[in-house]
Amino acid sequence: MGNTFGTLFRISTWGESHGGGIGVVIDGCPPRLPISTEEIQFELDRRRPGQSEITTPRKESDSATIVSGVYEGLTLGTPIGIYVPNGDQRPSAYSEMKDKFRPSHADFTYQTKFGIRNHEGGGRSSARETIGRVAAGAIARKVLKLAGDIDIRAYITRVHDIEAPAIEHFPSLEEVEASPVRCPHPETAETMVERIKAMRSEGDSVGGLIECRVRNLPVGLGVPVFDRLEADLAKAMLSLPATKGFEIGSGFEGTRLRGSEHNDVYVNKDGKVGTATNRSGGVQGGISNGEELIFRVAFKPTATILQNQETVDKEGKATELMGRGRHDPCVVPRAVPIVEAMASLVLVDHWMRQKAQCDSFEF
Amino acid sequence: MGNTFGTLFRISTWGESHGGGIGVVIDGCPPRLPISTEEIQFELDRRRPGQSEITTPRKESDSATIVSGVYEGLTLGTPIGIYVPNGDQRPSAYSEMKDKFRPSHADFTYQTKFGIRNHEGGGRSSARETIGRVAAGAIARKVLKLAGDIDIRAYITRVHDIEAPAIEHFPSLEEVEASPVRCPHPETAETMVERIKAMRSEGDSVGGLIECRVRNLPVGLGVPVFDRLEADLAKAMLSLPATKGFEIGSGFEGTRLRGSEHNDVYVNKDGKVGTATNRSGGVQGGISNGEELIFRVAFKPTATILQNQETVDKEGKATELMGRGRHDPCVVPRAVPIVEAMASLVLVDHWMRQKAQCDSFEF
Amino acid sequence: MGNTFGTLFRISTWGESHGGGIGVVIDGCPPRLPISTEEIQFELDRRRPGQSEITTPRKESDSATIVSGVYEGLTLGTPIGIYVPNGDQRPSAYSEMKDKFRPSHADFTYQTKFGIRNHEGGGRSSARETIGRVAAGAIARKVLKLAGDIDIRAYITRVHDIEAPAIEHFPSLEEVEASPVRCPHPETAETMVERIKAMRSEGDSVGGLIECRVRNLPVGLGVPVFDRLEADLAKAMLSLPATKGFEIGSGFEGTRLRGSEHNDVYVNKDGKVGTATNRSGGVQGGISNGEELIFRVAFKPTATILQNQETVDKEGKATELMGRGRHDPCVVPRAVPIVEAMASLVLVDHWMRQKAQCDSFEF
Amino acid sequence: MGNTFGTLFRISTWGESHGGGIGVVIDGCPPRLPISTEEIQFELDRRRPGQSEITTPRKESDSATIVSGVYEGLTLGTPIGIYVPNGDQRPSAYSEMKDKFRPSHADFTYQTKFGIRNHEGGGRSSARETIGRVAAGAIARKVLKLAGDIDIRAYITRVHDIEAPAIEHFPSLEEVEASPVRCPHPETAETMVERIKAMRSEGDSVGGLIECRVRNLPVGLGVPVFDRLEADLAKAMLSLPATKGFEIGSGFEGTRLRGSEHNDVYVNKDGKVGTATNRSGGVQGGISNGEELIFRVAFKPTATILQNQETVDKEGKATELMGRGRHDPCVVPRAVPIVEAMASLVLVDHWMRQKAQCDSFEF
Repeated sequence: MGNTFGTLFRISTWGESHGGGIGVVIDGCPPRLPISTEEIQFELDRRRPGQSEITTPRKESDSATIVSGVYEGLTLGTPIGIYVPNGDQRPSAYSEMKDKFRPSHADFTYQTKFGIRNHEGGGRSSARETIGRVAAGAIARKVLKLAGDIDIRAYITRVHDIEAPAIEHFPSLEEVEASPVRCPHPETAETMVERIKAMRSEGDSVGGLIECRVRNLPVGLGVPVFDRLEADLAKAMLSLPATKGFEIGSGFEGTRLRGSEHNDVYVNKDGKVGTATNRSGGVQGGISNGEELIFRVAFKPTATILQNQETVDKEGKATELMGRGRHDPCVVPRAVPIVEAMASLVLVDHWMRQKAQCDSFEF
Repeated sequence: MGNTFGTLFRISTWGESHGGGIGVVIDGCPPRLPISTEEIQFELDRRRPGQSEITTPRKESDSATIVSGVYEGLTLGTPIGIYVPNGDQRPSAYSEMKDKFRPSHADFTYQTKFGIRNHEGGGRSSARETIGRVAAGAIARKVLKLAGDIDIRAYITRVHDIEAPAIEHFPSLEEVEASPVRCPHPETAETMVERIKAMRSEGDSVGGLIECRVRNLPVGLGVPVFDRLEADLAKAMLSLPATKGFEIGSGFEGTRLRGSEHNDVYVNKDGKVGTATNRSGGVQGGISNGEELIFRVAFKPTATILQNQETVDKEGKATELMGRGRHDPCVVPRAVPIVEAMASLVLVDHWMRQKAQCDSFEF
Repeated sequence: MGNTFGTLFRISTWGESHGGGIGVVIDGCPPRLPISTEEIQFELDRRRPGQSEITTPRKESDSATIVSGVYEGLTLGTPIGIYVPNGDQRPSAYSEMKDKFRPSHADFTYQTKFGIRNHEGGGRSSARETIGRVAAGAIARKVLKLAGDIDIRAYITRVHDIEAPAIEHFPSLEEVEASPVRCPHPETAETMVERIKAMRSEGDSVGGLIECRVRNLPVGLGVPVFDRLEADLAKAMLSLPATKGFEIGSGFEGTRLRGSEHNDVYVNKDGKVGTATNRSGGVQGGISNGEELIFRVAFKPTATILQNQETVDKEGKATELMGRGRHDPCVVPRAVPIVEAMASLVLVDHWMRQKAQCDSFEF
Repeated sequence: MGNTFGTLFRISTWGESHGGGIGVVIDGCPPRLPISTEEIQFELDRRRPGQSEITTPRKESDSATIVSGVYEGLTLGTPIGIYVPNGDQRPSAYSEMKDKFRPSHADFTYQTKFGIRNHEGGGRSSARETIGRVAAGAIARKVLKLAGDIDIRAYITRVHDIEAPAIEHFPSLEEVEASPVRCPHPETAETMVERIKAMRSEGDSVGGLIECRVRNLPVGLGVPVFDRLEADLAKAMLSLPATKGFEIGSGFEGTRLRGSEHNDVYVNKDGKVGTATNRSGGVQGGISNGEELIFRVAFKPTATILQNQETVDKEGKATELMGRGRHDPCVVPRAVPIVEAMASLVLVDHWMRQKAQCDSFEF
């Protein structure tokens, strides 16, 4: 059951990194939504390997086909099937993985959990799995845009120890995409690119932080008590490969403040209730409060490094493994559209839940 | 639907802070589990207000009654209903709340989302709601203990800016409970207590960090890709009131390391595959790897402070609100058993899922 | 997980026939619905034992208390907890049941499935469990009435071999309640009452058929393909104790017609599309078509009879069991409000689903 | 959400009759199950149009490809994706359907519910949708066979008014497949075939009854109270196109018996507890009792007939529609493998649920 996400706007992803392909089924999308393959492909291209000089040189076109649920450019309200065939597979690059467990990869846990594993690649633990999420997210994003003019923007704020100054404004897509590292602060972006290139030349890797903001959210999204908006966002983000943390608003640092410093007092903003500050990050009691939603996700350094590492084999015997293959020295830039996709999925689901329970009835 | 948590071991909580009472229904508990009211009450007492000099002086006995699902001390496999009546309510203490929105509370968002609200208390956003979680968690914990000798231990590592040194060992329950602040480092605990008392005297509040560890977990818990163990834990923790962040293993700080520094290499530990370090925090690819599970949760300072704060009223008019009532200057110590309860619920659910899909079949 | 029903309007029932009590938690009810304890009690009284000369003489007041989710007569949008304490228990009446399996009861299957059982009564397989459903159904029915003027009416069409002539009109509540047997055809009702009394005097029992109709349904309720309206209704009905069959529209007899005889041709009814006949029973492709919804449910004769029956004991040894206790010779009249409750729950859920997916968006 | 079925063994189907293709994602299948494309194709061929002289002459090869989740002939425990491309589409045959609603089809309800519809075919309401179910059912059936030697057999007992004598034994697959009508009573089968041919020559259609039996079920499958085994089976069956009724064991006719005639007394069968008769149909209290599971499903006559019928167009104007295309005069024979598939899906799900909750724990 772990391959389905969402309650009303529900996606099921399938496919391994090495196999026929990758896909997603979207169940519950509102009917009559205009959507094109191009809109989906646009987001997939942002996630695609080989898109820039700092990503893996693997060439994967990741071309999406809509196989059901859309007719003459409009959604039918029935399940949308999207299919992306695999290509450019080099199983030989992975032959050692049959018997040895790669450090900080899922080889060992998959093998033990399932008693079997496709050793030709990362299987479901491969980042290729996120293709289905990004494709579905493109549709979710379109719903939110048309239904509420909602904008979702993620970007990198730190790579390794290179941190951008606080991004005060809501950056445009162009600002984010200006650099292959997707940091909207140009000088920092440049340094980040250099660091990533340096890591590649050393056969090493780095991680970083992604910040994501959402504007124009109505008040009321999020359901007490278990499906608080931040709870669903946290799950969405920690379900992504290589993530180690999630925080919203003031986050971990906010715990160093006093209540009198941390509280967001209410003010009247041009006739609407708002808050003077936004340490809450756009939620109160698990429900959106109309302010910008803002959260951050921590990505660990890529586990695959081109260095010799100790490990054990299937029999538990000590051995060594030399990292091979074509991998990203830093996955975080390519994770930016994935974070946006997951945020879109959470938000459209709560949008629909709010309509169903609260907005549709006038007794 | 937001009041249900879990897939196979599923709880539904109900009840507001001011009303008949609080309760929980547990659906899916294995039959024949020995469980007593005392075991449940033990955990509720750890969560209870008025338990020590640093918590709210509100006296709530929070006495649990098992109203179904247990017969002669054993679970029946049918829904377990647990009921805790409310008491010691002082709605008058909340009268101002009818028209004014308390800063950083859920008054405004509940009112706007639902178009109605019980202004006599926090309603579902009150921490009283967690009573049901703690009661259910006591049962989940018992299942895990008997089925796999699994231990779950949470404790405080920081209050405001007072941080304990790294806790290297798995602390005993006694060590944690030795101080009312539930920090297993005695000297730090003492300083924390002083700080909390100081905050109370100033009518202010502080937050902090809770760390939680689980030992004796088998390899294999957690389901790719959306129900990764850390994803479900993140959701569980961010569903708690006052939480702003979650991290597992190396967490946010781990993003400052290189891959070569961060990877956990595999070693043979007395015949079993293990890792030399534990930056992963006990999971790989979303699945438990047999090492200690370790994660941290950030709690913001209590929103209720005994100070005058600006706010707006229902009409959006600027006004002021003087914090009243009997509240915790720091909720984190009482959150320790709640974090354990939520972790127990996540783990027992994944234990059952692993049995259902992977362990029950030998083809 | 089997104790929860519904997707958006979701109920969880708990409680055994002998124990603290019976209850239900309703999650997802729209906020601001006016609802009173009296409205709930009205339906519970229709289900209550001892309500008439043809039901069991057991006196159970079945008094409902709303313990959460309603404030000053309006729903809050948070979980509604309803509690009905058990009373008038006579466990001694059941002492033989500890070791012997009652024929066509769930004693044997519960004991084998769970390895344990509360032998003092029917536990969860008791019809007392349906109290929670009826209480929740009263709220669902109110939502449907206020939101769409929807009427739900069930009644008996056959007891044993006594069959009422086809009920051509939509009967009023008064017509149904005019007889304790709840058949709106007065002459037949009288014969049915006599038959039931005769059965009681013989220590035997009978079953029968319930027909249920719903009017004023909008077009569009029901979700292809697994959650077709008739699929969810079938599940709802077969989840009731003692049910053996479900049919919609032309049902089993309709299979004897040709397509040219069975098809419902479309006609223009005062400007609206309708069908000339209603063999479909109000659905097409699993979706309500605006005609009257009409379905039937088969109830077997009560398993408890006051006669000596062969059976085996826990050790599998042949023995005999003399039926005792105070039971209904025919449960069908008391099942009428239960069928209505379950239909209400299915319909309100689909109403909300339709709002969420289809009605809320105009792209 | 209506396109997903099952809790632990969960399938999501996608695809319209006219479009890229049809498919299914199976989430939760146990790992290490040996499964081949041939085993899946075998069941698809039983469902395929054009398989015999009494089905539609449409030629659809319905070739299945496994695109994920199976590696070297064994399931991986990850989602199994199965894809069947569409072929032999003749949208022109459906051109009239753009504006006119076919009687007793889903055109009108889909159009009204979704505000849009692919008029080139039946869309999701087409029987082609069941391809995904049959493919998934082939895998579910294999799990049950290997895990518990469980056999599932459906067959036709009535076509129009031609009824086979009661089938006393559990028929073999060969007996069922001996006739294209899939009735294991050869003489009746022959008459049924003649009737179906006669209907085709008249441009008319007929329906019928399918009976399904399952042997070797363990005691204990089915979960009180909403997920009773018969409730889940009823939903599964009523989710199939053209179904109008479901009954288990004695069914509708059983309501004509007295309790003393209907009860199944317990007896010791070679050391195991069993029942002397099987009016219960293999369940008690919603839980399998170890006897044969036996249920029946009613299928209405095919809505598509090659005759002129009255109807209305999109504007509600009266018009006529001449049935065209190549359709089955009786869909029931092809529904036999579909009923088996749905039964398999329900049973494997409950098998896994029983493992998870009851069988895995020994306290």
